[in-house]
Amino acid sequence: MPTNHIIVLDHRPEAAPSAGNFKMITAETPALQEGQVLVRHHFLSLDPYMRGRMNAGKNYAQPQPLGEVMIGGTVGEVVESHHPKFKMGETVLCMGGWQEYSVINATLPGALKHIDTEKIAISHYLGAVGMPGVTAWYGLVKIIHAKPGSTVTVSAASGAVGSAFGALAKARGLRVVGIAGGKAKCHYVVNELGFDACIDYKEHPDYVSLAKALKEACPNGIDGHFENVGGMVLDAVMLRVNDFARIAVCGMIAGYNGEPLVMTNPSVILRSRMTLEGFIVSEHMEVWPEALAELSNLIASKRFAPKETVTQGLAAAPEAFMGLLKGQNFGKQLVKLI
Amino acid sequence: MPTNHIIVLDHRPEAAPSAGNFKMITAETPALQEGQVLVRHHFLSLDPYMRGRMNAGKNYAQPQPLGEVMIGGTVGEVVESHHPKFKMGETVLCMGGWQEYSVINATLPGALKHIDTEKIAISHYLGAVGMPGVTAWYGLVKIIHAKPGSTVTVSAASGAVGSAFGALAKARGLRVVGIAGGKAKCHYVVNELGFDACIDYKEHPDYVSLAKALKEACPNGIDGHFENVGGMVLDAVMLRVNDFARIAVCGMIAGYNGEPLVMTNPSVILRSRMTLEGFIVSEHMEVWPEALAELSNLIASKRFAPKETVTQGLAAAPEAFMGLLKGQNFGKQLVKLI
Repeated sequence: MPTNHIIVLDHRPEAAPSAGNFKMITAETPALQEGQVLVRHHFLSLDPYMRGRMNAGKNYAQPQPLGEVMIGGTVGEVVESHHPKFKMGETVLCMGGWQEYSVINATLPGALKHIDTEKIAISHYLGAVGMPGVTAWYGLVKIIHAKPGSTVTVSAASGAVGSAFGALAKARGLRVVGIAGGKAKCHYVVNELGFDACIDYKEHPDYVSLAKALKEACPNGIDGHFENVGGMVLDAVMLRVNDFARIAVCGMIAGYNGEPLVMTNPSVILRSRMTLEGFIVSEHMEVWPEALAELSNLIASKRFAPKETVTQGLAAAPEAFMGLLKGQNFGKQLVKLI
Repeated sequence: MPTNHIIVLDHRPEAAPSAGNFKMITAETPALQEGQVLVRHHFLSLDPYMRGRMNAGKNYAQPQPLGEVMIGGTVGEVVESHHPKFKMGETVLCMGGWQEYSVINATLPGALKHIDTEKIAISHYLGAVGMPGVTAWYGLVKIIHAKPGSTVTVSAASGAVGSAFGALAKARGLRVVGIAGGKAKCHYVVNELGFDACIDYKEHPDYVSLAKALKEACPNGIDGHFENVGGMVLDAVMLRVNDFARIAVCGMIAGYNGEPLVMTNPSVILRSRMTLEGFIVSEHMEVWPEALAELSNLIASKRFAPKETVTQGLAAAPEAFMGLLKGQNFGKQLVKLI
């Protein structure tokens, strides 16, 4: 059996996490039992939700257990199979974790999925045609459900979720305005992703200043917003919402390290008869087929060409993850494992 | 024509309002034109929403114009009519404002309504069988839509909206826990209104302390909450919500005077996949018949006997309104005008 390198969570962060919270260990992959499949990972996905799992406290999911392989989505190839539906060399998607190989119990529904890499690059199944893409779809279609001609906004606009949100919004004829960190990202959001405008939040000292920029970019106000960040961005958006605006709350990454993260003007919820709704996409598996069909179509027809930041080698994953949390990636953050 | 006393908004409050913001004037009631009805008011309703109208700033409704009769719901009798559907002596409901008489254009749909005072006292049409009752109904049924056996909470529990919310929740077999200010109100909420428990927020120095009391009163957590107050109460509730909790935001009276009113832990929206929804009941006229039918039934069958605080005479309305804003009333605040 091949030797496997595995990254485990070694200890939990006190406040801001560091690459030192993780540890790499080496182990032989075990012999397969009936129904199991050995997958060699080509790519590991790094996603903001992993930050929440590092903490011990209550969250929407169980904390990542210490000393065990860090959770994560992976794509790869079948290298050994004790399950009739999976054959050597087939490309698959699974929650393989931060390691080079995983043993998947393929008898569990949904644990291992075939993916078609003829028209769509394998890595996209961790991004636009995967969990981040469906996340964007759910927020736009099931929570915001904006009317044609209305204006929607999204924070972390150049990221895996934000870029998919923009593509889906443009496909529906909406005005979509991104919020991102830095000139280069904003340029990409407008000129490559096709957003109508993008605001660099780093140019704004506070939410009032950011709200002024939003007013310019959204002359008819904001009807729907997809929140990945929280804090100053959400405060600014709430100053510009129209009546009956709907906000999909997908991430509050601004507060992941325990910083105080208040909502400054909650009375807007009443004044504008707004709805805010938090969600995690894994609780809405029923929408995945419809969402993935639309996203695959956008990618295969090249109407949406999402950017990726690819870091080489498992050992670099912790540093790449720290970079993701600081917004240093550009588009979908991946780790290439072969 | 009879002489009318009228209270107008004289100038807007700088921060906290006072009775001095209002002014009483005297005028003859005008001669009626075709389609108009002269109503002599028996009761004027005082409601927290009026506070918002005193400010000049953007709100969900137009500000109360200075120098004009202050907005308000009224019940009374027809004393003169130039409309075939309304006859002298009939009891009616209208938005007559802070005055003794009003001239209503009865040709406008919904401007003047007959009310049946055989089984239900006339004053209840301004409370439990009126706007406050329908407000409670909308929040509970259309926003919270709690499952049987679940736990719901409401702030300002002894007030017109809160007490109706409790009655409607108990009729659905829910556990309902109130939050109110002072021992007497809490005693009334439990022993007369039939809530399962009521917490005196004045006994708690901060939201963490209040959240501990909520934990005791809601051992299975909070599934739905009806917010009349905001601030510390909402912060405390958000520490105790169950996954997928739903919060109907009806009032943020804690911030009406411009005090900073933040939401301390908005990340709970994501963590608990909560929904918060602001609403004003006048935008949902389609539910009124169904809501009023249920509320009338509860009152007529004496399963719900809401308390009223009745202040005598129009001149006392401004002070009574200041008392309402400070929570000095007990149940529905009315002004008796005859």
